[in-house]
Amino acid sequence: MIKNEKEVIIDLLQKEGLKIIQRTDYFNFSLDSLLVAEFLTLTKNIKKIVDLGTGNGSIPLFLSKRTKAKIIGLEIQEVSADLAKRNIEINNLENQIEIINDDMKNWKKYLAPGSQDAVITNPPFFKVTENKELLNDLNQLSLARHEIAINLDDLIKSAANLLKDKNGYFAMVHRPDRLIDIIETMRKYSIEPKRLRFCHSKEGKNAKMILIEGIKNGSSGGLIVYPPLYAHNEKGEYSKEVLEMFKG
Amino acid sequence: MIKNEKEVIIDLLQKEGLKIIQRTDYFNFSLDSLLVAEFLTLTKNIKKIVDLGTGNGSIPLFLSKRTKAKIIGLEIQEVSADLAKRNIEINNLENQIEIINDDMKNWKKYLAPGSQDAVITNPPFFKVTENKELLNDLNQLSLARHEIAINLDDLIKSAANLLKDKNGYFAMVHRPDRLIDIIETMRKYSIEPKRLRFCHSKEGKNAKMILIEGIKNGSSGGLIVYPPLYAHNEKGEYSKEVLEMFKG
Repeated sequence: MIKNEKEVIIDLLQKEGLKIIQRTDYFNFSLDSLLVAEFLTLTKNIKKIVDLGTGNGSIPLFLSKRTKAKIIGLEIQEVSADLAKRNIEINNLENQIEIINDDMKNWKKYLAPGSQDAVITNPPFFKVTENKELLNDLNQLSLARHEIAINLDDLIKSAANLLKDKNGYFAMVHRPDRLIDIIETMRKYSIEPKRLRFCHSKEGKNAKMILIEGIKNGSSGGLIVYPPLYAHNEKGEYSKEVLEMFKG
Repeated sequence: MIKNEKEVIIDLLQKEGLKIIQRTDYFNFSLDSLLVAEFLTLTKNIKKIVDLGTGNGSIPLFLSKRTKAKIIGLEIQEVSADLAKRNIEINNLENQIEIINDDMKNWKKYLAPGSQDAVITNPPFFKVTENKELLNDLNQLSLARHEIAINLDDLIKSAANLLKDKNGYFAMVHRPDRLIDIIETMRKYSIEPKRLRFCHSKEGKNAKMILIEGIKNGSSGGLIVYPPLYAHNEKGEYSKEVLEMFKG
């Protein structure tokens, strides 16, 4: 399955036998995808899941260890979508996971409104900046890291329209500095935030990441804020909790 | 200053010599007031502060150890406002702190719009419930603990109108289950949330309290989420950080 000298196959989790092909010159798997895949609520009623902006498919791969639900990953970048497809193949998950190479805004070409039980996403992290210099190097990497192809409003609107009207879950990993925008936009599209967790690089540091989950047409209020998640311990090693996740 | 057999004078902080009169049958000082008084940003430009719903005046008392700013506490309950006034007197802080016994919605009778550098509040925690039985015992305690006299919208609207247009700070302590409403209401009245901290009773527990601060007409985004604050250690004693605050 290796097509390119820049590609390597690595173990995605220690015990589960999941493999993933990564490229050194593209936006690769990071801890974010594992954390959000672990965070999403999965009940027996969740049978259809969409991952918006699936990249190399790591979120669907992680989810496959927690659920038998059908998972569709949408990815705008051809190179990433191709990687994702091959990742599904080397793990023999073609029956559970499907990768679609298109802009997530075009979801209506493939899926019916209100058809999904859960939508998950690890979206581009950075707000499109007015500073044009920062965007000069508009390559595949910046496309994945900036909100160029899609903005927060488009993203959450797509998620809300994909979700069924009752008990549809939306989970996202993002940066704390966008929390207020995220909350406002979720409410704008009738997704009530219900669960929130902050990830800190280690104890005593400000939060680096947020995990947020909401329910479509959920009742107002009742947010739970979980204990913080620390990525590393005092020695700079992965924390016990993160290591447990990697073990699968 | 003791007027009632139900009153006791206690030390508010260990080192600072602050005293406070409390009543056993009223809503008394709790950790919340100390935490929010410690959380508020105080710069040299902050010369006028209002505490909305000051209760027995504990927030102004705590703030007096951090700032020389003039502090006004508004309190609707006569018994609490009377306690607050006596608390100011026994600490000889009449030149810095003024207590007004009125509904905070009537602030215009005493203060000009846009006149304050900071507004702080430890508001009633519980949403008015549809369950009338819960509200049957409508005494002073429930008035302080329910959003009866004022709701979140009125409260934040008053704060926004009191604050100066630029660099006016609003700080509040509240419960996590209202975070989404608080954020939405702050933005509604042009107070951009900028600082957020979660308080957990101890490690591994969900958050019990939030500390949030916003800036009137602040630019969108840039929220900082601080390391969590733990009230107690594993033995159930106050944590080192809280003990440090009590030391003053």
